[in-house]
Amino acid sequence: MPISTRKEVAKLAGVSEATVSRVLNGVGPIREETRRKVLEAAERLSYHPSAIARSFARRRSGNIGVVLPHVPKVHLFSTYYFSEVLSGIGEAVREAGYDLLLLFRAIDETPDYPLYYQTQKIDGCLLLGTMDTAREREALDRLAEQDLPFCLVNQHFYGKPYPSVDADHIRGAASAVRHLLELGVRRVAFVNGPAAYSSSGERLRGYRQALTEAGITFDPGLVLEGNYSRTSGVRAGNELLRRRGGYDAVFAANDRMAIGVMQAFKAAGVEAGRELPIAGYDDSDASRLSDPPLTTVKVPFYEMGRLAAERVIRRLSGDGAREETTGESRLLLPTELIVRQSTSNWGG
Amino acid sequence: MPISTRKEVAKLAGVSEATVSRVLNGVGPIREETRRKVLEAAERLSYHPSAIARSFARRRSGNIGVVLPHVPKVHLFSTYYFSEVLSGIGEAVREAGYDLLLLFRAIDETPDYPLYYQTQKIDGCLLLGTMDTAREREALDRLAEQDLPFCLVNQHFYGKPYPSVDADHIRGAASAVRHLLELGVRRVAFVNGPAAYSSSGERLRGYRQALTEAGITFDPGLVLEGNYSRTSGVRAGNELLRRRGGYDAVFAANDRMAIGVMQAFKAAGVEAGRELPIAGYDDSDASRLSDPPLTTVKVPFYEMGRLAAERVIRRLSGDGAREETTGESRLLLPTELIVRQSTSNWGG
Repeated sequence: MPISTRKEVAKLAGVSEATVSRVLNGVGPIREETRRKVLEAAERLSYHPSAIARSFARRRSGNIGVVLPHVPKVHLFSTYYFSEVLSGIGEAVREAGYDLLLLFRAIDETPDYPLYYQTQKIDGCLLLGTMDTAREREALDRLAEQDLPFCLVNQHFYGKPYPSVDADHIRGAASAVRHLLELGVRRVAFVNGPAAYSSSGERLRGYRQALTEAGITFDPGLVLEGNYSRTSGVRAGNELLRRRGGYDAVFAANDRMAIGVMQAFKAAGVEAGRELPIAGYDDSDASRLSDPPLTTVKVPFYEMGRLAAERVIRRLSGDGAREETTGESRLLLPTELIVRQSTSNWGG
Repeated sequence: MPISTRKEVAKLAGVSEATVSRVLNGVGPIREETRRKVLEAAERLSYHPSAIARSFARRRSGNIGVVLPHVPKVHLFSTYYFSEVLSGIGEAVREAGYDLLLLFRAIDETPDYPLYYQTQKIDGCLLLGTMDTAREREALDRLAEQDLPFCLVNQHFYGKPYPSVDADHIRGAASAVRHLLELGVRRVAFVNGPAAYSSSGERLRGYRQALTEAGITFDPGLVLEGNYSRTSGVRAGNELLRRRGGYDAVFAANDRMAIGVMQAFKAAGVEAGRELPIAGYDDSDASRLSDPPLTTVKVPFYEMGRLAAERVIRRLSGDGAREETTGESRLLLPTELIVRQSTSNWGG
């Protein structure tokens, strides 16, 4: 007789697979009748993951928390990065029978993370968009010291072994800048995001690395700072328009800012992507729909969210305890250069 | 002395406004020290919303639930409708000091809603993307009978006074079809979403209404059904390509499907938006970025999410109890036609 699957248990019990997970992981509100049906079906099918034994061992909220920065006026879920990471987290969390608790924080506020666990709001936690400050490091140290299950997504803190699922933004940025330099340009203006995010710092390192390889001296005057919004891209574009002649290509740290730059240029009668090459970053939907379509760097945000959530959930079922305490706490996913018309149609 | 505000209390206590809300609403995990500081600041500033009196009255989870359908392979948060509604809900929920619990459901699963309240997972609940089935009506009846705070977003159930915040999709669809007919076309193909959603049914009514006004007989053969995904738009586009000559314009029930139709047409060498007029629905980011930019109908999704959440939160603080029990349970927001090149550049 083959090994039974969760799917078969769900079918026999007449419930969804997520409900089977809920019962077996001991999370979420479950009617006694439903619990009985699932356990009977598991019994009959000899389906006995170790989770059953643990299911009543300790009280749980059944919630995985996601800590998100709140930025006034920004429709957070409509930004590509957050929506994709959240979709990936949601998929893993749903599959394991947990619910997803979104915890909003003000940008200048450092939450007391352990309190969320102590008050049984959450069993585990994912952190998105935290900034590298001394207070944040202290707060994360408390999480780590208390050995609470958590994982950072798309960032890390140098010198700290916090668990994180990150993407290789050094290589990603370097590949985009290298591609621009191969077109024959020499002075690449770089619209970066705020330095307080590790992913911005790494893009800058990748930018500098590609310049060094090509024997070009780094000019800090070519680096502008936006905040990853389209509007900040428009502002950077207007600043660049005032400095015409000082650069011959543009690289933006995300697609939204690249599109903002293109819009500012277009308003001034300059067709970025045709008159000078421009590259973005993220491979968002918008990069495919912009005119011209944008050369960009693909980041596996959905996968990153999914892997980070799975990691926390594994720790909750006990399997990941060892892994998290070793030095190899940072999982680094590759990025990929995607060439489209905003650089390939450029005349040179 | 002017009346004190939450902002002043937050400043004096040295905490965020959301923390003041948490303390005064008695929700969320709060350190004793923080609670004391906020209450002292409120005392000193004579800031006494009635919430203080209630803050210890009953135990609360501090969570507002959002029930979302889970569709395999769909990156839910990356769809315009969900991301905007959630952004609006998130804003209101954060402001009131609550956290947001996302509850995923399988499409064919009807949750036991009251159980979420009984087990103190949530204090109130928003429902998105539910389908009009007998089981769903039963489940919602239980919520209503137990007088639990909830609100539907972007849908309603005919004949049922469930609280909902909806948009006027009849007028919205009629305005798009009327606009197409004014261009001189007579046979408008309509790519609608699944009939089980009230918003699809209303778009169909709006479509028929505009035809009737223009003295055109409704032809069911011109109505195709997609599932609101871009891929289903591509399928509809390919079907329409097989029937060339049978229609002279296309109206799609959302922008994603309209873009899918345009992509299918483009692959066959037909430039929708230039060779025949096409209109979408939603006014998503994609509608502005598509080539040509898409004529569409703007729906205030963010506002709808925000208003629905505020309504549930008002009920939690006691102020909305009366309103919800009257017949006027459905708040209907207006939509707006946005004309862009996909119809305005058409030669006629």
